[in-house]
Amino acid sequence: MLNQQQVRQFHDEGYLFLPETFTPEECALLRAEAEAIYRQQRPEIWREKSGAPRTAFAAHLYNEAFGLLARHPRMIRPVEQLFGESVYMHQFKINAKASFTGDVWQWHQDYGTWVRDDGMPEPRAMNIAVFLDEVMPINGPLMLVPRSHTEGVLAAGHDVTTTSYPLWTLDEDTVTRLVGRGGIVAPTGKPGGLLLFHGNLVHGSAGNITPYPRKIVYLTLNAVSNAIRTPTRPEWIAHTDFTPITVTDEQALSRYARGGRKAAA
Amino acid sequence: MLNQQQVRQFHDEGYLFLPETFTPEECALLRAEAEAIYRQQRPEIWREKSGAPRTAFAAHLYNEAFGLLARHPRMIRPVEQLFGESVYMHQFKINAKASFTGDVWQWHQDYGTWVRDDGMPEPRAMNIAVFLDEVMPINGPLMLVPRSHTEGVLAAGHDVTTTSYPLWTLDEDTVTRLVGRGGIVAPTGKPGGLLLFHGNLVHGSAGNITPYPRKIVYLTLNAVSNAIRTPTRPEWIAHTDFTPITVTDEQALSRYARGGRKAAA
Repeated sequence: MLNQQQVRQFHDEGYLFLPETFTPEECALLRAEAEAIYRQQRPEIWREKSGAPRTAFAAHLYNEAFGLLARHPRMIRPVEQLFGESVYMHQFKINAKASFTGDVWQWHQDYGTWVRDDGMPEPRAMNIAVFLDEVMPINGPLMLVPRSHTEGVLAAGHDVTTTSYPLWTLDEDTVTRLVGRGGIVAPTGKPGGLLLFHGNLVHGSAGNITPYPRKIVYLTLNAVSNAIRTPTRPEWIAHTDFTPITVTDEQALSRYARGGRKAAA
Repeated sequence: MLNQQQVRQFHDEGYLFLPETFTPEECALLRAEAEAIYRQQRPEIWREKSGAPRTAFAAHLYNEAFGLLARHPRMIRPVEQLFGESVYMHQFKINAKASFTGDVWQWHQDYGTWVRDDGMPEPRAMNIAVFLDEVMPINGPLMLVPRSHTEGVLAAGHDVTTTSYPLWTLDEDTVTRLVGRGGIVAPTGKPGGLLLFHGNLVHGSAGNITPYPRKIVYLTLNAVSNAIRTPTRPEWIAHTDFTPITVTDEQALSRYARGGRKAAA
């Protein structure tokens, strides 16, 4: 359970960071599975202009370890608490931010995309980052603009040129104004960190030229009452299975990590 | 004078950082002058693919404030001490790393360019960064690989595509090996910081997507006995005036900042 101070921090600042929420053993499993996924050729895996992996969609549907992560009580329970209801998986990605070649994500709000492309009624969906590698100041950490979630959906332009991933991005004047008020935070820390932030919180990340990869699972849990109304994107990008998530037991992922694939099958 | 520990740190690690060496007043002057220079159209000013300024060469020759910085005893004396002789200005740039659009500098050694392009006999030239803006972890700080200066000149490829500035850059395996041994440091701090590093120290910097510009003066002081032998680049990129620098008095730059242009003219 989140305490009162954590709940208030989320509502006031728009984000909450829970360091080392998953164990080194769990993270080592997920890292290895992510690297195996990136070696596959499938439509759910998008690449940088350089060919390096950028993001792998919907891995919780075709990989058992990520399937267990997607139902983990350490992640699901705090979001249910904040929304006061059950949640379903709206989107699930493993973002690579590969060593040397990981490219920028320009400043944007995620809910801007969900409302425009998916017909999501309200910004009652939670963005979540689970750190698989150590996130450092120098390997392209997620940068958040605190308090920017109070602005509603800001005007945005559709950027289809900067990177290989089209995105509704904010203009420089808007970002300058919001940063002038709220600053920028870039939560960093060991693998296993859990970062929760509001669907309207402005965020972005710079490129990664270091030898340190910065893989995170980047997923969205939507309140069941807020299911999307007018999907236009492929099912594996914006899911239309609105079944409430039932959590695993607390140790399911670590049992799987310890026992290998067979033990969990 | 540098103390014994500082001298040892430079020789062992390849760099030395002296925070807040120039005053807020001196830095405010240099920032304003840099911005005025970037607004000019001249061949010494190179731009990013976006059109934002990337670097302005040789400003010490056409701007009085930067002329005073280029002869400042707080910068010149430590380098004379480390080299044991007089120095001259080999190169002088104001690097913009502009807000939102500042682009990457890939991993490289500067001496690799000086020996190949300028015929510099030995790596007895010092790279210096003077922070004009606050350098933060998130606005594209210079990243250094400690101890990499002991490797001599490493094999490099001529990168003419990544950014608007051609550069002899190192391959990923080499950088991974050196970082595995020495790690990465990214000195940060208020305007006025002075960073000195060896001509063979491997360094680079990521892009800057924040609203915070990160201007630094980035210059090279070469030992007079080590003057370049076979220049191939324009005079305003690699200077051929080998006259030893005579320092100003300690207060010349701050007098100029206080009194404005006329007082110093």
